[in-house]
Amino acid sequence: MRAVVMRDSAFSIEDRPIPAPGEGEVLLKTRLCGICGSDLHQFKHAGEIDRLAREMGAPGQDLAKGMVLGHEYVGEVVDFGPGTQQALRKGDRVVSVPFLLRGGAPVAIGANVEVDGAYAEYFLGTEALLLKVPDEVPDEAAALVEPLGIAVHAVAKSRLAAGDMPCVVLGCGPIGLAIIAVLKMRGVSRIVASDFSTKRRELAAQMGATQTVHPKQESVFAALDASTPVLAFDCTGVRGVLSQTINTAPVGSQIVVAGIPQGEDTFNPMVAIAKELNLQFVLYYTPEEFAEALQAVASGKIDWRPLVTGTVGLDGVAGAFAALEDPEQHAKIMIDPWSDAQL
Amino acid sequence: MRAVVMRDSAFSIEDRPIPAPGEGEVLLKTRLCGICGSDLHQFKHAGEIDRLAREMGAPGQDLAKGMVLGHEYVGEVVDFGPGTQQALRKGDRVVSVPFLLRGGAPVAIGANVEVDGAYAEYFLGTEALLLKVPDEVPDEAAALVEPLGIAVHAVAKSRLAAGDMPCVVLGCGPIGLAIIAVLKMRGVSRIVASDFSTKRRELAAQMGATQTVHPKQESVFAALDASTPVLAFDCTGVRGVLSQTINTAPVGSQIVVAGIPQGEDTFNPMVAIAKELNLQFVLYYTPEEFAEALQAVASGKIDWRPLVTGTVGLDGVAGAFAALEDPEQHAKIMIDPWSDAQL
Repeated sequence: MRAVVMRDSAFSIEDRPIPAPGEGEVLLKTRLCGICGSDLHQFKHAGEIDRLAREMGAPGQDLAKGMVLGHEYVGEVVDFGPGTQQALRKGDRVVSVPFLLRGGAPVAIGANVEVDGAYAEYFLGTEALLLKVPDEVPDEAAALVEPLGIAVHAVAKSRLAAGDMPCVVLGCGPIGLAIIAVLKMRGVSRIVASDFSTKRRELAAQMGATQTVHPKQESVFAALDASTPVLAFDCTGVRGVLSQTINTAPVGSQIVVAGIPQGEDTFNPMVAIAKELNLQFVLYYTPEEFAEALQAVASGKIDWRPLVTGTVGLDGVAGAFAALEDPEQHAKIMIDPWSDAQL
Repeated sequence: MRAVVMRDSAFSIEDRPIPAPGEGEVLLKTRLCGICGSDLHQFKHAGEIDRLAREMGAPGQDLAKGMVLGHEYVGEVVDFGPGTQQALRKGDRVVSVPFLLRGGAPVAIGANVEVDGAYAEYFLGTEALLLKVPDEVPDEAAALVEPLGIAVHAVAKSRLAAGDMPCVVLGCGPIGLAIIAVLKMRGVSRIVASDFSTKRRELAAQMGATQTVHPKQESVFAALDASTPVLAFDCTGVRGVLSQTINTAPVGSQIVVAGIPQGEDTFNPMVAIAKELNLQFVLYYTPEEFAEALQAVASGKIDWRPLVTGTVGLDGVAGAFAALEDPEQHAKIMIDPWSDAQL
């Protein structure tokens, strides 16, 4: 099968054997796979991420093997491994939290050199984690369940209670936009979104932001009552934004850090203390939150359509990564391994 | 009257007029006033604190006027200003949140050059904020209500629910010790306290720590289950401890930052994200929390006695500040303006 292999911040198309499903596993044919911000991050910083993981006590990996990215997938059941229940049928479309359960432990799909992701014609899933996609849900929506799950989780870990408090979303990439959609679904009446890009601010408004701001022209907090605590989501992944948000957020605010900045960050604890700020760092989702994201697109509670701005085949992945450097062009680009589309 | 005046990181005894109570204010005779860690901080860093306040938009102050510190007081009602209710009687002992209400706005007592604190024979209070100290409560206990209020607040702002989860207290100065006492009062069954000082670790055990640790010899988290989220209180006020705690705390932990480190701090957000940590910065208390602290010492729910390690007169303040640099000697030193005690 054809697979996009990442090695030393470059992509190549390689011919790899179709993987054989192990105990409890299912072979899936890739229907679509979204390009995630964390894929861009891996593309640029795989060496640094590996070094940090080793520092935190994880075993390192042999990056020379090459990594097949892809964890925002919708797949089609092709074959069953040993010890499977087979309640799903061949041809069923499925999504899942991007992990295999091997020896009872979760192993990430498409984020290491051991378990290939869905930037390929086929990939493996653990049967017990698969959720059937209802027939009325298009592939594009199903492939968005993973980033929407991140947003459901970020909002669930925040202090948002009873559906309303003033919210601010810093950075309108796919995660910021997904959080805006979830906040709208939760009934939030004030959602101020900030991004340097005109296109991203337009998308933010389409997804549910009640006001958008260019951060160089206006503070995102200026639009809100300075004496009311705010729920701010830092989805920029940019160093220095957290510190700036600590300095400018109203007293008593909570900052949910959903973007992943590279390297160390510096801030003044005395300012955070003087304002009694709360910082909540978030990652991933629970299986229940992932299932809620699927339910939200299936029921139409979230209008996901503005998020998808392009589709490429495997040969178009390198071009898509380059295009995503410019926020004016695209938000979420889907990979269809069976298409020869380029941007 | 005699007052201890701080100017350019030095103390002098000055003769100042007994202050005249304004509208709604009461003249109080100082019975005791505790020396707070934030007083030590003001003593060393008044210029820097003023600079930062100006940066945050506050009006600056003329530090050359000299500052009379002292906000952990128990006072005795001596005289009433105009417009007072006079439900209290002359001779009643009182404590209060250390603010005057002037023009409806709170002005801190003993932390600026405008409103003198209780490092003096007399000081002013706002009548509406005064709480009568029950007869059975000794002056020492009443003067501890303020730092105990800080601890009640820090615990209330934390995630501690239903009275139990593993807790860690980093730094066993008066605030760390007070937090240990409040955690014990809340029914917490595992309280691991860490401090470099033998004396402070002994005090921690007396106040309710179930285990104490020398941070150079053992990680404070080593004693606890690495897979269970912990509630950690950083009461060190030392730069770098927060970053180190982020690196060593178990996944899902909350870090409550109750100490005030000077200057900027650096940490790795990716580590905080990977562990989904929560950081809660805390300051002060609500009037209700302050009242609860008074009730806790009055009812004997908190055994405050180990905290008080010395008493000085006004002439002994400079020596007490010097002595507090050595954690092996003292925890909380009380000032009695009517005594000529030295350490």
